Parts: sequence; C-alpha cells; structure tokens
Amino acid sequence: MKILVINCGSSSLKYQFIDIETETVLAKGLVERIGIDGRLKHTPAGKDAVVKEESIPDHNKAVSMVIEALTDPEHGVISDMKEIDAVGHRIVHGGEKFASSVVINDEVIAAIEECCDLAPLHNPANLIGIHACQELMPGTPMVAVFDTSFHQTMPEKAYTYGIPYEYYEKYKVRRYGFHGTSHRYVSGRVAAILGKPIEDLKIVVCHLGNGASVCAVKNGESVDTSMGLTPLEGLIMGTRSGDLDPAILQFIMNKENLDIDGMLNVLNKKSGILGVSNGISSDFREIENAYAAGDPAAKRANDAFVYRVVKYIGAYAAAMNGIDAVAFTAGLGENNAKIRKEICDYLGYLGLKVDDEKNNVRGKEVVFSTEDSKVAALLVPTDEEMMIARDTASLVK
Amino acid sequence: MKILVINCGSSSLKYQFIDIETETVLAKGLVERIGIDGRLKHTPAGKDAVVKEESIPDHNKAVSMVIEALTDPEHGVISDMKEIDAVGHRIVHGGEKFASSVVINDEVIAAIEECCDLAPLHNPANLIGIHACQELMPGTPMVAVFDTSFHQTMPEKAYTYGIPYEYYEKYKVRRYGFHGTSHRYVSGRVAAILGKPIEDLKIVVCHLGNGASVCAVKNGESVDTSMGLTPLEGLIMGTRSGDLDPAILQFIMNKENLDIDGMLNVLNKKSGILGVSNGISSDFREIENAYAAGDPAAKRANDAFVYRVVKYIGAYAAAMNGIDAVAFTAGLGENNAKIRKEICDYLGYLGLKVDDEKNNVRGKEVVFSTEDSKVAALLVPTDEEMMIARDTASLVK
Repeated sequence: MKILVINCGSSSLKYQFIDIETETVLAKGLVERIGIDGRLKHTPAGKDAVVKEESIPDHNKAVSMVIEALTDPEHGVISDMKEIDAVGHRIVHGGEKFASSVVINDEVIAAIEECCDLAPLHNPANLIGIHACQELMPGTPMVAVFDTSFHQTMPEKAYTYGIPYEYYEKYKVRRYGFHGTSHRYVSGRVAAILGKPIEDLKIVVCHLGNGASVCAVKNGESVDTSMGLTPLEGLIMGTRSGDLDPAILQFIMNKENLDIDGMLNVLNKKSGILGVSNGISSDFREIENAYAAGDPAAKRANDAFVYRVVKYIGAYAAAMNGIDAVAFTAGLGENNAKIRKEICDYLGYLGLKVDDEKNNVRGKEVVFSTEDSKVAALLVPTDEEMMIARDTASLVK
Repeated sequence: MKILVINCGSSSLKYQFIDIETETVLAKGLVERIGIDGRLKHTPAGKDAVVKEESIPDHNKAVSMVIEALTDPEHGVISDMKEIDAVGHRIVHGGEKFASSVVINDEVIAAIEECCDLAPLHNPANLIGIHACQELMPGTPMVAVFDTSFHQTMPEKAYTYGIPYEYYEKYKVRRYGFHGTSHRYVSGRVAAILGKPIEDLKIVVCHLGNGASVCAVKNGESVDTSMGLTPLEGLIMGTRSGDLDPAILQFIMNKENLDIDGMLNVLNKKSGILGVSNGISSDFREIENAYAAGDPAAKRANDAFVYRVVKYIGAYAAAMNGIDAVAFTAGLGENNAKIRKEICDYLGYLGLKVDDEKNNVRGKEVVFSTEDSKVAALLVPTDEEMMIARDTASLVK
C-alpha cells in the first residue's frame, strides 16, 4: 500500500510518498509560494532533486503538480496516480472532537471546520489541501491525523487553565498541545529501543525544533504537554516567547502603544531566542556559533532556553511521580549534543548520567545515558510523516 | 528596641508593634476604609480588640490614630510615641534597585518612586505610608523592606523572559518575584528546625495563601520563584489565573469584546480557584467544603491548584538538581493538611514520605515527613512582620 502524506500550509504543501509495507519513503517534496509565483522541489529516493518554477495560483494546481511529479516518466516513482492508495493529511487542530486519526468524510470535514476558530492560520489551509485532493483524486480514501489528538488523554487538572470556567464551556479554552504525532512516534520508539512495554514507562519527550514542546507520556498516553491553547505557550522557541506573566502583555502594550494583535505578533515572531539574543538569530546553530565566540547575548539565549526545558522535565517528573526515560527529537534535539548534555546535567538528582561518547552523535537512534543510569536518555529522530502514513494505512485497510 | 511595622495599602494600613529584644508582638491592628469612611481595629497582646469607627480622610489621619491607639492610657502599650524607636515599611516593588532592606532617606524614596511603574497599585500606597510617618514621627528612623529584594539573587536564566531583550533594557521587564520576606523567613526557619546551615540546603518554599508563590532557595538564596514581573504569574491563586498561554488573552478579548485592561481585570479578580470552580469561592475553605460535599467544580479547582504547585516543586527540584526540604506556609499551607498531603504524595520519586499523624496539625512549626524520608517536609507559619522588624532593628542600630 502506497500513501501520500500531505502537510498543507497557506502558501505551501509538503509531501512524502511512502510504501507502508516496507516503510520506505519513495519520494518527497515541497511546493512553495502558492498564490505568489510558485516553485516545486521533488526528490525521488536516492536521486537528485528536481525543481520546477512555474505559476501555481492555488492548491489544486499544487496537488496536480505533485501527482505529475510522482507519475513523471523520468522523476516519478509510480506510473499511474491510481497507485496512490490513500492520502494522509496532517491537520493542526482537532479540538476536543478528535482523540485519534480518522477517515475523512463530510462530517469530519465539518468538524475540522469547526476547529478553525482555535487554529485560524492552520486549519483553513489544511482544509484547502483536503479539498484539492478530493477534486483531483476522487475516490481515493483520505485520513486526517491531528497534531492535538495524542494529547486528548490529558487529565482535567492538566488541561484546565486558572480562568473563569465559562470560557471553557463557551469557547473551549483549555490546553490542547501540539506536536502530538511526533510525541507519539518518539515515545513509541523509546519503548521499542528500551525493549519494554510502553504501558510500563514514564517518558518525557523533548521535541526541540524551531517550534518546541515537551510532553509527559505515562503508560503510552500523553498526560501533559507544554504547548497550550495555541503553540505559543511553553518553551522559549525560535521566535515564540513561550511562558510569560500574562500581565506583561498589558505592560508592554501600554509602553509600546501596541494593540493585542500587534503584541501577539511580537510574541510569535520577534521573541524566543531571536528576541532574547537581541536579534542574533532564531536559528540555534547561529546562537551556538555566537556563544562559542563569546557573545553574552547568545549565552543568555542558550541558558534561558536550556533552563526552561529543564524545568519542564522536572515538572513532568513530579506530575508522573518519577521518570524512566527522557528523549530528544527534532532539529535541535537530534543535532545538538551540547544542548542535550547541558539539559541532562541538571538531572543528576534523578540518577540520570550521560555517556559523553554515546551522546556525540547526530540524527541517529541512540541511548546516550550510561549503563548504570537510573533514567535512560535517548536521541530519537522524529518521523511524523511515517506516523501519518501508518495511521492512514491502518484506517483505510 | 520597639519597632512599628507598617503595611500600607491604598485604603488600608496594617500594623504590628514589636519588641525586638524579645521578639514579642505588643499590639497589632488594621485601619480600613481610609478615604471612604474609616475604621480602626486595635488589638493589644492578650487583650480584646477595640474598634473605632470615625472619619479617616487620609493616611496621615490613619497613622495618627495608630499612634493614639499605641499610647492610649487604656488600650495602649507605651506611654509616649517616643518609645517607637523605628518604623519598618513593607514595600512591594524594589525593582532591580534593592537587593536588601534599606534605611529610608530621600534617595531611597526617589528610587521607590521610580519603581511605581512596575507596581502602580502598590508602591504609591506604600509611599503614602512613608510620607505620613515622616510627618507625624519626624526624626524616627525608618526602614524599607521589599517583597522583591530576596529574589534579586536569581540568575539571569531564571529572570529572563523569552521576549525581545529591548523590553528589559528599556522597561526592565523581567521576573522579580514577590513574597520575598516570607520566603526568606521560612527558608531560614527550615534551616534552624533541621539544624543545618542554610548554605548547605536546597529548599522549596510554598507560600500558599490567597496570593500564592513557590520559591527555590539554594544555599540561602532565592534562585527562582513563580511570580514574575507582577504577582499574577505562577500558581492558580484565589482570584488570579497564574500561568497562561499568552495567546489566550487575544482569544478571549476577541470573543468577549474586552480591552487589555478589562482582560487583566478578569485575570486578576475573577480567575484562579474562584473562576475554575465556576464561582464557588476564592476561599479554599469553601472549596474544600464543596469538594467534601461532592461538587465536581470544587474538585476541579482543588486538583488544578494542587497539580500546579506540584509541577513548580518538580521544576525547582530540577533547577537545583535535587531538594532537601519542602516547606509550606501562609493560610492554606499552614492550615490545610489535606492539601499538603496531596502535594507531597506526588513527590515519592524524590523519596519524600509524609507522616500523616505529624501532618495533622495547623499553624505550628513541624517536620511532618517520616524519619526515613529523603526530603524533609515542613509546616512553618510565616511571619513577615517579624522579619521586617528584625531588618529594621538591625539597620537602625
């Protein structure tokens, strides 16, 4: 069974085409600048990327270009679009409606539309991708996989904010959490690597990318996570502030004569390590270079970032009454041994010990704690697309 | 040496009159409804309270009534106001200017005025109290004791928010923390009770009152605390929300057609356990009664409150790489054995064990962990006024 996995943004469309029997990526690519000008980059497995620049006015055109690329006699990997057995769509917000992946039908589309309120930038774009596929691949079964659904197991005490309850009743204001597909994938891999049933494990997964979140996984279920109603809460991210005293918004809005939309724009796009480093970069590689060169602003951003991650791990250790494993994933988590080491060095009180040699690795599955460490530390490259393909295959079978 | 301790609000003035040699409270009282109508309640030690209701147009009148009460032939405790050797003022916000208590002079007053920006409701009222005392007790030395100063030892990684650094440079937006006098007093008592030098201890102090905060005290210094730029951040409090996804403000403001001041009013006055319990009460005693009677909204408020405290303790255990003691203080912390037990029960992974019999106590200093507990759990009634009196005495000597 061959699955097309689609992650559709407002002006972009990422895809992977996966053979689920062998769990092989046959091709992947990115369509960019949809509605602006247009660019497709298509990479068949083991071959060079091909780039096409042409007018891409809408997502229908984008999807048709993806199908063309997949079936192209030269760069393609199938001969007919009928070989696309199913499509898996990444959907950002499933609200309280979806606690797992689901086959897409009219009812599901209506429910995703209802969640647009909670993710006004993302869900509408995801829906455009669904509609484009429906038009161009009629009859091909499709599955929705939600960033939020893994976290629907959170108990009330974890998802309840300290605000009037009517806001939950009227508008469903609560913690949802994101990166659920990644946290689910990584926690599953942790259990497999450690050779233990996930039902017996307490795991903290640190998804540290440009967007970043921490998740407490107990017995295979998410019991808490650092992102909230939106992906703004929690860790200090590339450009997002993470946790703040809510009164800071009022204070800065008054000082800078900003309205709430202007303030949120700052908190989403000009904050995080970009802001803390006083503009060095939102990219941690540049922060690390500047830190190595002795820049105190880069050190400040590094230390504040690390410290916040550490506090979340500690909080979740308390929430679960201990932990068996800490796992690192996503760009920074997979590639920055120094950050992993700095974080783990705080956790000696839990009996966690790092093996520096084992930790000296990038993007490969590894247990990098010592043999006698009481808590396992792991690097697990995430694979959200494979998870979406698996869900899609198992639901359409 | 006899010290008058004053805590001046915009329409109220709390006081204690303390003999510092014996650390005895000679009298205490409260002036309320200043500028509205006026009421003084004065309680000499070991005697019944006396209440005076008369017009109190301003704080000068309030201070003169306090002096009258202290020197009253019948209810007084001294014969002449000259026996007031010094006055200690509680000041809410010392910004980055004050890392310890200080004798009040013109320069100090100017610096407190500069911090009004950071605490617009509190510092101006505190200053009114200082000016009234200066007028009515000219020549009596006065000391300022700040809620924030204990936390000035926090490292940069703990006080830095994930926002553009210019907001710190221009407006001093950072974590300050509050309840510092209480956290300092309690952590000092913990060391004394355990018979260990405070320089060797890692302590988490949970000040759980109507306002509530948690503080990580390492080697006698505050290294992190849950309140931030303002007392709104951190725990779920009586009526304050504590931590929130900052994007929630925008979401609710749009839904409810609120401006930022209206939103902050909700977060400060209608949120916390009052809001989570759907209006049952901001008073934990009523929440506990409703919980006992089976009210799910009361259980929700209780559980969310406890869980947030637990996560902060866990976060600070990670921040300090372990803890030696957890201490509980203030109204709820001192009087609610059930809450203390619920919180500590999460902390078994740290080796903390509660002795239920020892925990069955109110408002008394006690170690309530078991003999073999790896982390000590303590109840320590706070005494901010005594701490202010001590600082005042030692600085004016």
